[in-house]
Parts: sequence; structure tokens; C-alpha cells
Amino acid sequence: MKINDIVVLAEVTAAFEAYERALMMNDIISLDSFFWQSAHVVRYGVTENLYGTNELAAFRRGRVGGAPNRLLKRVSITTYGDDFGTACAEYGRDGSRATSRQIQSWVRFPDG
Amino acid sequence: MKINDIVVLAEVTAAFEAYERALMMNDIISLDSFFWQSAHVVRYGVTENLYGTNELAAFRRGRVGGAPNRLLKRVSITTYGDDFGTACAEYGRDGSRATSRQIQSWVRFPDG
Repeated sequence: MKINDIVVLAEVTAAFEAYERALMMNDIISLDSFFWQSAHVVRYGVTENLYGTNELAAFRRGRVGGAPNRLLKRVSITTYGDDFGTACAEYGRDGSRATSRQIQSWVRFPDG
Repeated sequence: MKINDIVVLAEVTAAFEAYERALMMNDIISLDSFFWQSAHVVRYGVTENLYGTNELAAFRRGRVGGAPNRLLKRVSITTYGDDFGTACAEYGRDGSRATSRQIQSWVRFPDG
């Protein structure tokens, strides 16, 4: 299994960065598109535990103003073979001295 | 890509459960073995952000008495193809009314 293939790593890094931009712009349609459309998808946020596409979509639409501004402090992205990657990040939010953490699992499905 | 193949799902579920048992017993050798031996491995704990096998091993050995007892409240395990899975769990710790969250990424490498 090839770890951090240069092409796959670049793809996952680009996806991670595009998600971050969409989050900061509260671009809900883009944010939806980064998540697997499935009853199996899970998103644990700072204050919420969401299961399935419907819960994720409802949360986005109920979140007035979107996510607080944040600054990435440390990012670690790793890919495994051609179709899977993990992205771990520490970040600080405006107005808070705490460091929060985000973990994403990226999967290449046949449709994206 | 086959989602939740019955055999792969059983394998990841067994690994998830074995990790939980090792955590509750503070079986450090077993706990080490569940994590990828790599500078790329990342583990965010309730209070710690660990990068690389050395930091994980040092944390385990410095954690007197191991993890607090905990009770799993909700578990969602999904597999993607033959070699990858995610395990998301909500749990409560003894002595706390808060619900914590755990996310694991399971990868089948050539050596396990």
C-alpha cells in the first residue's frame, strides 16, 4: 500500500483546503458536497453529533452566520493507497484561546 | 466500492471492540499494537494531541492507571472496500455527565 503518493496527497490536500474555504465562507452547497451522501455519514462538531445526510444538512441550514473564523495551527494529512486519506488539524477560533481539533476521513467513491 | 461488506465490517467491529477492552484494562502493549507504527500516526485524546509512534508510546507510559472507565453510548462503524473503515463513538466517562466522542480510522496494511 503506497503511503502519501504524491498525486493522491495533492488531491486530498486540495480537498481539505477547499473545504476550509467553504467553511469560512459558509458556502452551504459546497459544504454539503464534501460529505458522503449517506445514512452512514457521521460528523461530530464542536457541540453537535450528527448522523446521516439529513442531520448534517439541517445543521448547516440552522447555523446562522456559519462557523466562527478560525486559524489552522497544525495540519497532518496522510493518504493510504489511491482512494483514502485522513486529515488531522489543530485550530484556534476567534475569541477563544483554546485549541480545537478536526479529523476528516476522505474517501474516493466512484462518483467523487 | 463495497460499503459495509459483511466480512470487513465484522473485522473492523472486532478490532474496535478489542481496542476498547485493551483501553479499559490499560493493556499498553496491545494498545500500542492497534496504532500504525509510523511518524504519520496521529492521536487526539481528550486532553492531548499526539503525533508519531514515539509520542503515543510516551503518553501511554505516562498515564498512570490508564483511561477512566467509560461506557459506550452510540457506535457507528462503516467500511469502504476491503481495507478501510471508520469507527465513530459517543461515550460517557465515570464521574462526568458529559458525552465525549471518539473517531478511529482503521487501515489494513500488508502487515496488519
